Amino acid sequence: MRAVTVYDTTLRDGAQTEGISFSAEDKLKITLKLDRMGFHYVEGGWPGSNPKDMEYFVRVRELGLQHATVTAFGSTRRKNTRPADDENLAAILKSGVKAATLFGKSWDFHVTRALGTSLEENLSMIRESVAYLRDQGLEVVYDAEHFFDGYKANPAYALATLEAAVAGGAAVLVLCDTNGGALPWELQAVVELVCKRFSVPVGIHAHNDGGMAVANTLMAVQAGATHVQGTINGYGERCGNADLCAVLPNLSLKCGVNTIPEEKLRHLVELSRYVSEIANMHPNPQQPYVGMSAFSHKGGVHVSALMKDPLTYEHINPEAVGNRRRVLVSELSGLSNLLYKIRELNLDLPNEGEVARQVLGQLKELEHQGFQFESAEGSFELLVRRAANGYEKPFILESLRILTELKENRAVHSEATIKLRVGEKIVHTAAEGNGPVNALDNALRKALEQFYPAIKGMRLIDYKVRVINEAAGTGAVVRVLIETSDGHRSWVTLGVSPNIIEASWQALADSFAYGLLKKNAAAGASAAGNPAPD
Amino acid sequence: MRAVTVYDTTLRDGAQTEGISFSAEDKLKITLKLDRMGFHYVEGGWPGSNPKDMEYFVRVRELGLQHATVTAFGSTRRKNTRPADDENLAAILKSGVKAATLFGKSWDFHVTRALGTSLEENLSMIRESVAYLRDQGLEVVYDAEHFFDGYKANPAYALATLEAAVAGGAAVLVLCDTNGGALPWELQAVVELVCKRFSVPVGIHAHNDGGMAVANTLMAVQAGATHVQGTINGYGERCGNADLCAVLPNLSLKCGVNTIPEEKLRHLVELSRYVSEIANMHPNPQQPYVGMSAFSHKGGVHVSALMKDPLTYEHINPEAVGNRRRVLVSELSGLSNLLYKIRELNLDLPNEGEVARQVLGQLKELEHQGFQFESAEGSFELLVRRAANGYEKPFILESLRILTELKENRAVHSEATIKLRVGEKIVHTAAEGNGPVNALDNALRKALEQFYPAIKGMRLIDYKVRVINEAAGTGAVVRVLIETSDGHRSWVTLGVSPNIIEASWQALADSFAYGLLKKNAAAGASAAGNPAPD
Repeated sequence: MRAVTVYDTTLRDGAQTEGISFSAEDKLKITLKLDRMGFHYVEGGWPGSNPKDMEYFVRVRELGLQHATVTAFGSTRRKNTRPADDENLAAILKSGVKAATLFGKSWDFHVTRALGTSLEENLSMIRESVAYLRDQGLEVVYDAEHFFDGYKANPAYALATLEAAVAGGAAVLVLCDTNGGALPWELQAVVELVCKRFSVPVGIHAHNDGGMAVANTLMAVQAGATHVQGTINGYGERCGNADLCAVLPNLSLKCGVNTIPEEKLRHLVELSRYVSEIANMHPNPQQPYVGMSAFSHKGGVHVSALMKDPLTYEHINPEAVGNRRRVLVSELSGLSNLLYKIRELNLDLPNEGEVARQVLGQLKELEHQGFQFESAEGSFELLVRRAANGYEKPFILESLRILTELKENRAVHSEATIKLRVGEKIVHTAAEGNGPVNALDNALRKALEQFYPAIKGMRLIDYKVRVINEAAGTGAVVRVLIETSDGHRSWVTLGVSPNIIEASWQALADSFAYGLLKKNAAAGASAAGNPAPD
Repeated sequence: MRAVTVYDTTLRDGAQTEGISFSAEDKLKITLKLDRMGFHYVEGGWPGSNPKDMEYFVRVRELGLQHATVTAFGSTRRKNTRPADDENLAAILKSGVKAATLFGKSWDFHVTRALGTSLEENLSMIRESVAYLRDQGLEVVYDAEHFFDGYKANPAYALATLEAAVAGGAAVLVLCDTNGGALPWELQAVVELVCKRFSVPVGIHAHNDGGMAVANTLMAVQAGATHVQGTINGYGERCGNADLCAVLPNLSLKCGVNTIPEEKLRHLVELSRYVSEIANMHPNPQQPYVGMSAFSHKGGVHVSALMKDPLTYEHINPEAVGNRRRVLVSELSGLSNLLYKIRELNLDLPNEGEVARQVLGQLKELEHQGFQFESAEGSFELLVRRAANGYEKPFILESLRILTELKENRAVHSEATIKLRVGEKIVHTAAEGNGPVNALDNALRKALEQFYPAIKGMRLIDYKVRVINEAAGTGAVVRVLIETSDGHRSWVTLGVSPNIIEASWQALADSFAYGLLKKNAAAGASAAGNPAPD
C-alpha cells in the first residue's frame, strides 16, 4: 500500500494567519499533540526570525517526542556570502534540530526582481546552503518556493533549482504553490514530470487562494508525490494552506494511501478543536470532515433515508475521523456515546443507564445554550456526579457583587464581595483584583481557604473567553474555560452566560469543586461541619 | 471563447445550511442582486415544500429581472402515479416559473432502498415528469442526484437515467455529487464520458464534503461541462456547496471561460458580503478571492517583495473581484510596512515620515502590552491621526462604574454609570445590560446619542475577547476586538487590559470615535459646542 510522509506547518505557516499569535508554550502543546497523533514532521518555526521561536527550539528537546521530527525553517543563504557566515543558517544550527527546511527561489522573475541577484548565484545559494547543513549532519527538506509559477515562466530554470538542491543533498523536493493559484490539472502535470525526472522523493505544499489546496494536494499525490505539507484547520496567510484535516482522511479513507495510523485518524476532530482552542480561532462548522456541521442533516428527505442507511447521504462514516452524525430535527444518537464516556470516569454507578439518560437531556439543553463539554472534562464529570446523586456540593453561592471603576488618569479598580454557605456556616468576604474576574477569584479563595486548605495548592493555569454568537455584539453569550492545576494534574471547567461574570463564576466554582472532589473533600467537609446536600 | 451557464442555488441548497433561514423578503433581495450581477439562473426554492417558497414565486414576477431565469425545484413524480396527479409537479406549475429543476435518482441502491421501487419505474418517473413539464411549456433542468456514486455502483443504470431525462426533453443534464465525496480525477473521467455520449449540455453540482467542491467543479468544466451550479459563499447542508465566489473568478480569470461579465466580477466581494449580511452568517476572513484576509500580507519578506511587484505574492489582482490588498502591521514589520499602511489611509500628511516613526515607536510599546493592530484598522487609523495632530476627540471619559450582582435563584444583573465630557458639556447617565460590557455599551450610546445622532445608525456586529497570557489565569491580560457597521461599511477597533471592562471600554470608545470620524463629526461637534482638543 502506498504511503505519504505527513509534514505539519501549523506552527510556522499557520502562525501567519491574520489573528493568530502563538506563544512558545502554545507551540509546545501543539507539537506534543501532533507527535501523539503520529505526524512525521512538525515544522516548529523560523529560529532566525524572532526570540520566541528560539525559546521553542530549546524547550522542545525536553518533550520526549515519539514520532515526529521537529524541523527548523529558514531561507537559503544571502547572496554573495558563504553559508558559514549566514545568520539564518547559523540560527538553524543553533536551534539544535536534526532536520531543517530550507526554502529557495524557483521563479526566475523572483530571483532577479525580489532577490536582485543572478540566476546562477541563486543556484549556488541553494546548492551550498543545503550542502552546508547536510555537512553538519542535518536532514534537509527543500521547499521550492513558487515552483509552479516558476515552472510556467521558465521550466528549464525551475528544474535547475531542483537539481541544485539535489546536488546539495536534499532529502526531499517540496514543490510549493506559494501564491495558491495553481489549477489542479496544471499542477498535476508538473508534479508528474518532476517525479519522473528525480529519484529523490517529491513533496507538495499548496496554498488555498483558488479554494483548491486540498484537491491540489491530492492531485500531487496521485501524480507521485510522497510527502504532503499542510496545516491543522488550513490555517495560513491569506486564504490559508492545505487543510490536513481534509487531506489526511481523503488520502487514508478514499485513496488507499497511508498517512497517520487509522486509530489516530479517529481523533482528528479532537486535534482540530484542540488547535483551534489554542489558536483562539472560531471553528468553522462547515469544515470538511471535522466541522460541527460536517455530518449534520437538516432536510427531512435526507433524514428518513439516513435512518434506512447512513450511506445514502454520507460520504464516509463520521466515526472514522471522530466526528458524529447530527440530526437537526430529532436527536436520535448520543446515548451509547454518553454511556461510553460515563464508563470512562470509572464511577461504578449502579444506575448508569438512568444517569446517562438524565445527563443526555441536560446536555441537549446546555449545548443549546452554548455549553460544550468536549474540552471541559471537569465540568462534565460534575454534571454526571450531580445526576448520579450522592454528590455533595462543597459550597453554595448566596450572592456576589462586583464593582469596577475607571476614572480619568487613575488606575482601573475592581472589587468583589461574596457570600457563601459552606455546610452550616455562612462566609461573607471581599477582595480586590486587577479585573472583575480576578477580584472574584481572589474573594472566592479567601472565603474557602479556611474550610478547604487544599485550595491553596490549586493554581489557575489557563483562562479562556470565547464569544459564541459574536454577531450579537456586546450582548453576545460568552463561554469561559478555566484550567486548574494542583501541581500533579490539571482539569478544565466551563461556564456559559451572556454575562461574563456569571460565566466566569460557573467555571471558577466548578474548578474548585472538582479539585476538592479529587483531593478527597472529607478533610474540608469535616472542618466545615456537614456540607449541605446538593 | 468558451462560456458556462451560471446557476445559483443559494436560495434552495444554501438555505439548508445549519443556522440559515431566509424569509421570502430575503430571497427576493438576493434574487435581485444575483440578477444585477448577471447570473443566468436563480433557483428560487421548492414550491411544494412550504408556503414561504410559494409566496416568493408569486412576488418574484414583479421584480423585473433582466438577466436571470428563476427556476422552481422539485422531485420527479411519486412512484406509481401519473405526473398530472402529482402534488409537487402541480406546485411547480402553479409557481408560474418558466423553468423548473427536477431531481431524480441515479443510484440503483437509492432507488430500491430509499424510494423502495423498481429500477424500471424510476426511469419512467424521470422521463414522464420531465416530459410533463416540457409539455406545459417549461424549460427543464435535470439534476441527476448522486450521479457519481450511482455511476460507480452501476454505470449502465446511471446512464439509463440520463437517457430517460433526455427522452423526456431535459434541456441540461446536471451531474450531482450529492454526498460531496467524489475525487477530482474520478469525477472528471465520468463527466468526460457523459459529455461524449450526450448531445444535451452537461452541468455540474458539487458538494464540499471532501473539501474539493470548487476543484471538482473546475475539473468538470475542463471535461466538457457547460453549466455550473453552486451557492454564494459555499453555503449548503453539511460542508456546503461549491462556492461560486471562487468558481467564477477561477473560470473567468484563469481558465479563459466566460461566466458573468468581467465588470460584474469586480463586485464579487460586495455580493458575498451582501448575502452573508442577509443570511446573518459571519463572513469567513480566509475565504478565497472575497475574504477579508484573502490579500492580506503579514510577513516582512513578502511585504518588501510586494512593494517591488504585487505579482510576487498574489495570484490575481485583487481589484478584479473587488477585493483589496492589505498589509498587516505588526511589531515585526518595520517602517516600510507602516509607511505603506499610512499612505493607504490617504490622509495626505505633510510629515508622514515623522508620523510613521512616532507611530512605530508606539506600536512596539502597545504590541508588547498585547495590542495587535493587524485586524483593528479602525484603532490603527485613530493611532495615526492622533500622532499626526489636528485630531479632536469627540468625547472624553471622566469616569465609569459597573456593578454586577448575582444572587441565589435570581437573574444576574449588570448596571453601568458613565460620566463623559463632550466639548464643553458634561453628560452623566446610567444603563443596564445583560452583562457588564453590554451595560457599558448601552450607557455610552445613551450618553452620546443626543450629541451625535449618527451613533443610532452604528451597530456592533462582532465582539471578540482573547485572553493573551492565559497562563496568568483570571489575572491575565485580555484583548477585546469590536466590529461595528453603519450599514455601508464596517470597521474593527480594539482594547487591551488585564481588566476586561477597561479593554472593552477602549475598543468601544474607539469604535464610536472612528465611526464619527467617517460620518464627518462636524454636525455632532457643533451641537456639542467646541470639542476638547486631544
